[in-house]
Amino acid sequence: MKKAAIVLSGCGVYDGSEIHEAVIALLCLQSRNFEVDFYAPNISQYHTVNHLNGKEETPSRSVLEESARIARGAISDLSEFSAEKYDVLAFPGGFGAAKNLSTFAFDGKNCEVNKDVERAIKSALKTGSAIVFMCISPVIAAKVIGSGVVLTIGRDPATASAIESMGAKHVDKSAGDFARDEKFNVWTTPAYMLASSAAEVFAGASKMFDDIVNFLNAR
Amino acid sequence: MKKAAIVLSGCGVYDGSEIHEAVIALLCLQSRNFEVDFYAPNISQYHTVNHLNGKEETPSRSVLEESARIARGAISDLSEFSAEKYDVLAFPGGFGAAKNLSTFAFDGKNCEVNKDVERAIKSALKTGSAIVFMCISPVIAAKVIGSGVVLTIGRDPATASAIESMGAKHVDKSAGDFARDEKFNVWTTPAYMLASSAAEVFAGASKMFDDIVNFLNAR
Repeated sequence: MKKAAIVLSGCGVYDGSEIHEAVIALLCLQSRNFEVDFYAPNISQYHTVNHLNGKEETPSRSVLEESARIARGAISDLSEFSAEKYDVLAFPGGFGAAKNLSTFAFDGKNCEVNKDVERAIKSALKTGSAIVFMCISPVIAAKVIGSGVVLTIGRDPATASAIESMGAKHVDKSAGDFARDEKFNVWTTPAYMLASSAAEVFAGASKMFDDIVNFLNAR
Repeated sequence: MKKAAIVLSGCGVYDGSEIHEAVIALLCLQSRNFEVDFYAPNISQYHTVNHLNGKEETPSRSVLEESARIARGAISDLSEFSAEKYDVLAFPGGFGAAKNLSTFAFDGKNCEVNKDVERAIKSALKTGSAIVFMCISPVIAAKVIGSGVVLTIGRDPATASAIESMGAKHVDKSAGDFARDEKFNVWTTPAYMLASSAAEVFAGASKMFDDIVNFLNAR
């Protein structure tokens, strides 16, 4: 049985992981016979956003504790991640990828990436795992990998320009599609950067994970 | 285009809606061309549970605000629900169904059901909508409908016995299956009462929503 790790960044599109994308990644992996483990960094969220009215709230919440909601409690501290155990390392989107896993939401191309996230990606690059970034999370790949890594991040010109400034190459893909970098084994799908429904996110993710299974079987 | 309403009870299996079930209901409905609206009662959660260690936490959270995380902000107060607008009314599971939408977790067969939830179900029964209960949420159907309504709630004898004490008839179904009550137009699937993965929840839900589409098309 192949194994996958999903890295979460909280629970909710405005301050954490985009919930539909996280569940769809899980569902796509399990329905392709992957055993899935969840990870999140053990840090505080940048902030807590009331998803009903968009306002900031106190107290701040823990990325690991809130991510545990999506994982039904079965989640590990990302500092314990070991790439050797996994065939796939996947990052759903949501503002948590740009606020908690990195500082892209505030610093753009000058962003910093959480050290555990950076270490997980660099070790997965060494083991040749398939690395997946959905929605806004390809900004992390641009920063950590750079070197002309091919990514799609939807069609917002400023965001595409920012990832190119960090050394990535942006390609235009629709919500139901994905991009693949054959040098670094990185897959990206626009998800809610472009999708107008969970069904559209699912369409792009399904096509992407089919391609990943083909890649893993051909290794 | 047909319309569906999903009623949430928070965001997280131990104190709110089971997140996978909520997203899978959304995905099944959207992929069958339903337009989906989310609702939740505007009440405080019974309590907040840290999903990493299972402990109770303060402060308490709002059912409507936390449910808004699953709905990406697009959610309405359940007191505004009007059954005439919808072909389907769906309740995902999670302890929120037994702690926030009803008091089943504490009072068993003597539970009370939130007044907005009760009103929504009773009005949907009048309009002949398809009414869906996943996982533990059939306890609500047993209390509000009773009258021999046919439900499945997994294989825990005590829970099955409790819903029979409230006037329902329990039938044994596997995780990948569903039960249908043809008198009240109520569909139930065991979901995480029995499932060991989101993929299994999806299998049961997919089969159930296919049957609901057939029912709606034949009306």
